[in-house]
Amino acid sequence: MYTIGVDFGTESGRALLVDVRDGREVASAVHPYGDGVIDQHLPGSDKPLPPDWALQNPYDYIEVFKQTIPAVLKQAGVKPEEVVGVAIDFTACTMLPTLKDGTPLCGVDQWRSNPHSWVKLWKHHAAQPEADLINETARKMGQGWLQRYGGKISSEWFFSKALQILNEAPEVYAAADRLIEACDWVIWQLTGVEIRNACTAGYKAMVQEEGYPDRAYFGALNPAFADVVDSKMQRTFGELGSKAGGLTAQAAAWTGLKEGTAVAVANVDAHVTYPAVKAKSGTMVMIMGTSTCHILNGDKLQTVEGMCGVVRGGITPGYYGYEAGQSGVGDIFAWFVNNAVPPEYHDAAKAAGMDVHQYLEHEAAKQKVGEHGLIALDWWNGNRSTLVDADLTGLLVGGTLGTRAPDIYRALIEATAYGTRVIIEAFEQQGVPVTELICAGGLPDKNAMLRQIYADVTGRSLRLAGSTQAPALGSAMHAAVAAGVYPNIDAAADVMGKLKDEVVQPIAANKAVYDQLYADYKTLYDYFGRGKNDVMKRLKQIRREVRGE
Amino acid sequence: MYTIGVDFGTESGRALLVDVRDGREVASAVHPYGDGVIDQHLPGSDKPLPPDWALQNPYDYIEVFKQTIPAVLKQAGVKPEEVVGVAIDFTACTMLPTLKDGTPLCGVDQWRSNPHSWVKLWKHHAAQPEADLINETARKMGQGWLQRYGGKISSEWFFSKALQILNEAPEVYAAADRLIEACDWVIWQLTGVEIRNACTAGYKAMVQEEGYPDRAYFGALNPAFADVVDSKMQRTFGELGSKAGGLTAQAAAWTGLKEGTAVAVANVDAHVTYPAVKAKSGTMVMIMGTSTCHILNGDKLQTVEGMCGVVRGGITPGYYGYEAGQSGVGDIFAWFVNNAVPPEYHDAAKAAGMDVHQYLEHEAAKQKVGEHGLIALDWWNGNRSTLVDADLTGLLVGGTLGTRAPDIYRALIEATAYGTRVIIEAFEQQGVPVTELICAGGLPDKNAMLRQIYADVTGRSLRLAGSTQAPALGSAMHAAVAAGVYPNIDAAADVMGKLKDEVVQPIAANKAVYDQLYADYKTLYDYFGRGKNDVMKRLKQIRREVRGE
Repeated sequence: MYTIGVDFGTESGRALLVDVRDGREVASAVHPYGDGVIDQHLPGSDKPLPPDWALQNPYDYIEVFKQTIPAVLKQAGVKPEEVVGVAIDFTACTMLPTLKDGTPLCGVDQWRSNPHSWVKLWKHHAAQPEADLINETARKMGQGWLQRYGGKISSEWFFSKALQILNEAPEVYAAADRLIEACDWVIWQLTGVEIRNACTAGYKAMVQEEGYPDRAYFGALNPAFADVVDSKMQRTFGELGSKAGGLTAQAAAWTGLKEGTAVAVANVDAHVTYPAVKAKSGTMVMIMGTSTCHILNGDKLQTVEGMCGVVRGGITPGYYGYEAGQSGVGDIFAWFVNNAVPPEYHDAAKAAGMDVHQYLEHEAAKQKVGEHGLIALDWWNGNRSTLVDADLTGLLVGGTLGTRAPDIYRALIEATAYGTRVIIEAFEQQGVPVTELICAGGLPDKNAMLRQIYADVTGRSLRLAGSTQAPALGSAMHAAVAAGVYPNIDAAADVMGKLKDEVVQPIAANKAVYDQLYADYKTLYDYFGRGKNDVMKRLKQIRREVRGE
Repeated sequence: MYTIGVDFGTESGRALLVDVRDGREVASAVHPYGDGVIDQHLPGSDKPLPPDWALQNPYDYIEVFKQTIPAVLKQAGVKPEEVVGVAIDFTACTMLPTLKDGTPLCGVDQWRSNPHSWVKLWKHHAAQPEADLINETARKMGQGWLQRYGGKISSEWFFSKALQILNEAPEVYAAADRLIEACDWVIWQLTGVEIRNACTAGYKAMVQEEGYPDRAYFGALNPAFADVVDSKMQRTFGELGSKAGGLTAQAAAWTGLKEGTAVAVANVDAHVTYPAVKAKSGTMVMIMGTSTCHILNGDKLQTVEGMCGVVRGGITPGYYGYEAGQSGVGDIFAWFVNNAVPPEYHDAAKAAGMDVHQYLEHEAAKQKVGEHGLIALDWWNGNRSTLVDADLTGLLVGGTLGTRAPDIYRALIEATAYGTRVIIEAFEQQGVPVTELICAGGLPDKNAMLRQIYADVTGRSLRLAGSTQAPALGSAMHAAVAAGVYPNIDAAADVMGKLKDEVVQPIAANKAVYDQLYADYKTLYDYFGRGKNDVMKRLKQIRREVRGE
């Protein structure tokens, strides 16, 4: 008996066929989106898009189903009737305007040439003025939900993007019967059922126990926005792992699966990874890539400083799902390797048959803790949690004429570990325990020194995801629950979730030195991050002024 | 009518034959020291020297006279009787033990194999324990001279090195009839006259108006050190530019000059540069190389924070000579180019036919002030003035994923300019005016962006030395005064001194932005440098502990 998880990434979609009895990954297939990330101009147009725009074509998502599901069935030699469920996970917030019947506005001749009719991808960053207004207005009106999101809503989120459509293309806004998360739209296309998943509703559209923010608030943003929820959104929320509906005849034809096959409500890539690595309440899962997303179930509702969000049932029904993040991790290391490593290390890496990251790790791993004499603040791309401040910047202290590239490389890795420790301590100070760490993503897999540093700095054991396609595996588990194979996600995780055997334990002697260094990191963190010295903001401001921005 | 200036550097000596009527540089010759810098083992020995040692062979200095003076006479076709005077400048403090007749102890068979019998070069850094004791004892005993040296004596200076001989080789100390600066020893060899020049006596051996520190103080350092001055030093001080004596018959034979030719008292390379660039009271001369030495005449005696020293007549008779310094300048830029610039810039520099420094300057010079969004603290090699703290380290703030090598290169140059501004302001706050800057050394000659940055940051006009062998020229001017051609150094400077025509003026718009950035530099300077956050010292301490140092 099998389920299929489909993971919609930024560039492509991946289907994974999984045996529900043991979580065995039987077959997988990837299909790149035909139009990819649309950030230069619309397909078939020469007109350049403004800066910071990032769009997608929703029909590319349908094509993923058509290509990948038949492929995995064929690869595995599995019959359609052996597949009992389908589920998906997606980037978020990725949203689009549609007609009442679900037709994307960009699929309507009248609107196709207007960029606002297309899917706004998660990394569409052009709605910052809207986000600023959303935050300022919420603060002024004392909106209680704001503290559930660390006091700040992102320009990436749902209402920032929706308000941008109203502000810049009121005619598109008026024509949209629905504004919807792409993941929910995809499920609508598979099942004919329009339902909002609890995860994106909570983390991206400010839905808390009391529902959406109220009309008065939306009206304060723009009078024409007052009825955005009543007129363009839908109030049926689906618990994660619950069944949204069955495959329609049309979707069955696309995929080669049986009509009526159970389809779970949609989910998000980071969050669906949580059960895929067998995480239970108290385990922090870190999805580490260019940035890090921290996902954590807790038993209680707490307000934790600078969290991305806390949503009841946002990760697993019955728990409070906490999300936090570091906005620069792998991309800081990549910046360093590309911009600050001299030729001799590139040459030595080549001679050793390693890439530069590997070579620097190899050299830096020889050091004792504290030997390089450096501390960095990991803010090259701002600070998401706990300070929620994109205008903070990177800092390095301790440089001498003897400082070498592996020293700085190691200091940057340590800085990201200190940043994670700050987040852990913010949770624990509010009574949300963090007992162990599980890492997913390519970064921790490749770098043993990084794993040990994270264990030593945080004083917690660390394990690694057992699957390299953990999000798709997590979706397949949700499909199993939706199909009734397992009563709940935890039960599915026990059987289908996967961890590597390696358990990285903190080394007491290392932790003792890191405790000293962390105390200094924290002093610098507070000094530069909490208003004692706003030099980072002043430098950004001066930079903007002299560049005429 | 001619004089000859001989400049004794770290690796070689240079003679310059100058026409006293106009300062025209007629001929020059360089002779590298046969034994160079002795920092591995003594000549003819395999026994390794301890770390931080740096010695020289005094007979190499004599060889410079023998080789270079005949060479310049020959090159220029000048007759010995046309040369009216000789003067020298030297590194300092560079000192040696000798017998009563001036024979270096390392020239005596009994002592030759003991490293303490050789010349201790300025950069011999093994006397730090002695320097620490000298400082601690001076503070405890309330020694008034300490404030004339910014509150701290260096391990490079005379009594640190002398005390190291006593502590580590009491038999060499006992055998030494004289402990003497190498420059004064050289003049002794030329003239048969033992005389201490006012410059090294003042800046390196704590001689102020009241003479040396007293017996009680030296005795507190070590009872056997109480009579170091009385028994091993000489109390005749020679004003700079005064005649020490005439060439002996032997020295005339070495050089091919006439016996009795006037020889000036010795001087120091940085200080002798002051008149060579026509500097007058209120002009700060910056000798910029790996580090920067700031030389300034003032009319009044003031205590200025963190100065290297203030000595009456230390630069020019009749003025208070101030010396300050930045312990890392060119070596920070060299560190950056060697350790933090990625291959693409090395390749692009090569393609453009530039060295990497030139290419980075070329790229960074395109920027507007403040455009890179960075501030650095220029402490990669510690801070000499105004904080006198070798344990301070480098800092960079403002890094983003968009930061590129030319950005950091420019920020480091700016940081050294901010450091100079702090020094200037320390002088001016104490009523010692700094009206303009004159730069000597290769660094400002090569880098037009650096010149403009220094003018903009300090708000002062900046000029460049007119000679590339300014110290030797300055010595030739002192020789002219010693020979009676000019009544004093200022008069010689008017005729023989040289400046380039270029005057770099501060650009008001740039200065306005730099004023803002400097305010932030100063905040960081005080925060990290004055005890509010001693993270730099803690990092160095942790580093020492884990390395077992």
